[in-house]
Amino acid sequence: MPTMIPNRHLFGPGPSNPYPEATAALGYPLLGHLDPDFITRLDNTCEGLRRVWGTTNSRTLPLSGTGSLGMETAFVNTLSKGDVAVIAVNGLFGQRMCEVASRCGAEVVRVDHDFGQPIDVERVAAAHPNPTVIAAVHAETSTGVLSDIKALGSVKGDALLIADAVTSIGGSELRADDWGIDVGYAGTQKCLGVAPGLAPFTISDAAFSRRVETPQSWYMDLGLLGGYVGGNSGGGRTYHHTAPVAMVASLEAALDRITAEGIENAWARHEAAGRKLQTGLQDMGLDLFAAEGHRLPQLTTVKVPDGVDSAAARAFLLTNFDIEIGGGVGEYADTVWRIGLMGPNANDASVALLLGAIEEAIKNA
Amino acid sequence: MPTMIPNRHLFGPGPSNPYPEATAALGYPLLGHLDPDFITRLDNTCEGLRRVWGTTNSRTLPLSGTGSLGMETAFVNTLSKGDVAVIAVNGLFGQRMCEVASRCGAEVVRVDHDFGQPIDVERVAAAHPNPTVIAAVHAETSTGVLSDIKALGSVKGDALLIADAVTSIGGSELRADDWGIDVGYAGTQKCLGVAPGLAPFTISDAAFSRRVETPQSWYMDLGLLGGYVGGNSGGGRTYHHTAPVAMVASLEAALDRITAEGIENAWARHEAAGRKLQTGLQDMGLDLFAAEGHRLPQLTTVKVPDGVDSAAARAFLLTNFDIEIGGGVGEYADTVWRIGLMGPNANDASVALLLGAIEEAIKNA
Repeated sequence: MPTMIPNRHLFGPGPSNPYPEATAALGYPLLGHLDPDFITRLDNTCEGLRRVWGTTNSRTLPLSGTGSLGMETAFVNTLSKGDVAVIAVNGLFGQRMCEVASRCGAEVVRVDHDFGQPIDVERVAAAHPNPTVIAAVHAETSTGVLSDIKALGSVKGDALLIADAVTSIGGSELRADDWGIDVGYAGTQKCLGVAPGLAPFTISDAAFSRRVETPQSWYMDLGLLGGYVGGNSGGGRTYHHTAPVAMVASLEAALDRITAEGIENAWARHEAAGRKLQTGLQDMGLDLFAAEGHRLPQLTTVKVPDGVDSAAARAFLLTNFDIEIGGGVGEYADTVWRIGLMGPNANDASVALLLGAIEEAIKNA
Repeated sequence: MPTMIPNRHLFGPGPSNPYPEATAALGYPLLGHLDPDFITRLDNTCEGLRRVWGTTNSRTLPLSGTGSLGMETAFVNTLSKGDVAVIAVNGLFGQRMCEVASRCGAEVVRVDHDFGQPIDVERVAAAHPNPTVIAAVHAETSTGVLSDIKALGSVKGDALLIADAVTSIGGSELRADDWGIDVGYAGTQKCLGVAPGLAPFTISDAAFSRRVETPQSWYMDLGLLGGYVGGNSGGGRTYHHTAPVAMVASLEAALDRITAEGIENAWARHEAAGRKLQTGLQDMGLDLFAAEGHRLPQLTTVKVPDGVDSAAARAFLLTNFDIEIGGGVGEYADTVWRIGLMGPNANDASVALLLGAIEEAIKNA
């Protein structure tokens, strides 16, 4: 146990600080994973997840792992050996999709974009005449870019659309059913305001009926997991694995709070805080990295000013302000900062604190 | 959020109630997964895990999923298509091993035993002349039976020995290095006294060097995960996925407590409590299910008395005493109870409470 527990402002690309309700729920007395009270909690959690996904899919549930498990679950249940997967790549998580899909034995058709740019929907749609799946990242955590999943859904044809909503869920408009998302996965540790460890997941009935019957992974087999949340055709519940009950209680509490605020109000709050931060950074003379018009409010990417050592400035923020911000990814590791305002941190106080602290860091680091 | 939070005695097969330190740590302010303070916490957690595993393996870490993810990680990294896996089956989790191994494309040589019996080491060793792996469950959660992994290790030959220690870790003598365990996986929610959600995992250097180079799973790829805990050959840390930081903090706190108690003292405490419960149940005229001499102290299986409705009695315990015990598994679903005394529940008070409550339940349910 640490002797002095740090109290960080988590303004990086995630995890964010959780909502207080989510933290409190972690400390509730534990319930067994088969307890009737836990089943009620799990059902309420799945109902809350349907609201933030914008879906009525019965198979909407928190997977027992992080967002990357959600990604692999999406591909392993939809791709058989030799199937074609068209994957839009405009950042690290699109790259990861290619790696994961290829391990399913799929033929990956990769559509590359410059980092910092949104996906080009027409180019992705034209990449292959008849893919099994088309996959794209809604909000690229590595670059701070929002892509138009709704437009991609309108041109997907017979392909299943897989969307990564790890950083968008709870912070950006997301309407899985209206946009034609067949399979979606997310994380809890960004705009949902919960600690990392669960992957909110949704799959439509149509996609479920086209799933791989016996996927190479047992842990991620949606045919078995469907029973776990009572979504199988028989309607009964079947034991699959021991649910991470404390984390589910925490997610439920955060979703209840988001419901009380209203999901559209939560989106607007993230939008307002992010735009205010971006304006403030530009007023300080800094240049934003993501393409204008496609910038995520909840995750701002900004170029490290000339003459400033990125790592030194981040260490200065951590030491003097207990503030964590993120470095860049790949070739931008030392030249871009990633600054998150997610969940409870999407507010004016965080913006004021960040702008003041960053100004000092640039001067002193 | 529930309006009245139940306060259960979790005396089933798991999850158990957590240690108070583990619950408190869940509420600590969250750290980023790349925070230098978190890295210290993670290193301390891995060190604590080495103590409860009885190993010096550098690649000993909490995987970001439940015990079943640990099982799949063990097989997916050791079995290529066509490899032979000899699997001892004396309960549900041995059966699950066969399913998981076959999804890796392995040829599974299944060695069946009656439920309630320990594995027959000689028969397992003789099942195939040259298997890639031999796998067995140390403490079968479905039957309450302890098997002799040390003896299996002494006859494994060139095979890699995979051991399931989900229910034994922290509660029964476990010496991975001395016994020749090459790959081991466990869970947090039993005798370690932490909520479910992490899979303590260990793999020896020798087994790591014989691993599948590109396993079919990206999320479970130990070649990538080695870097995540600084155990890769270069010594540096690499980003793989966002660690479930709150759960890791909780595990660390429980391991610190177990270290303070002394792991051998923790084993002895589980032994004393379990034997006292078993004697008490027999004194009430009940019959134990697991074979004598091979009974787990931390998980007692007992036959439901004639004329008693298993589900009604369990509902009576839940309603009147806030006590959860487990039903049986498979064909024993309605004829066996599974009663756990794990982690903080392995004590005289739990035994007294259970014996009194079960006596009432049998009379009144």
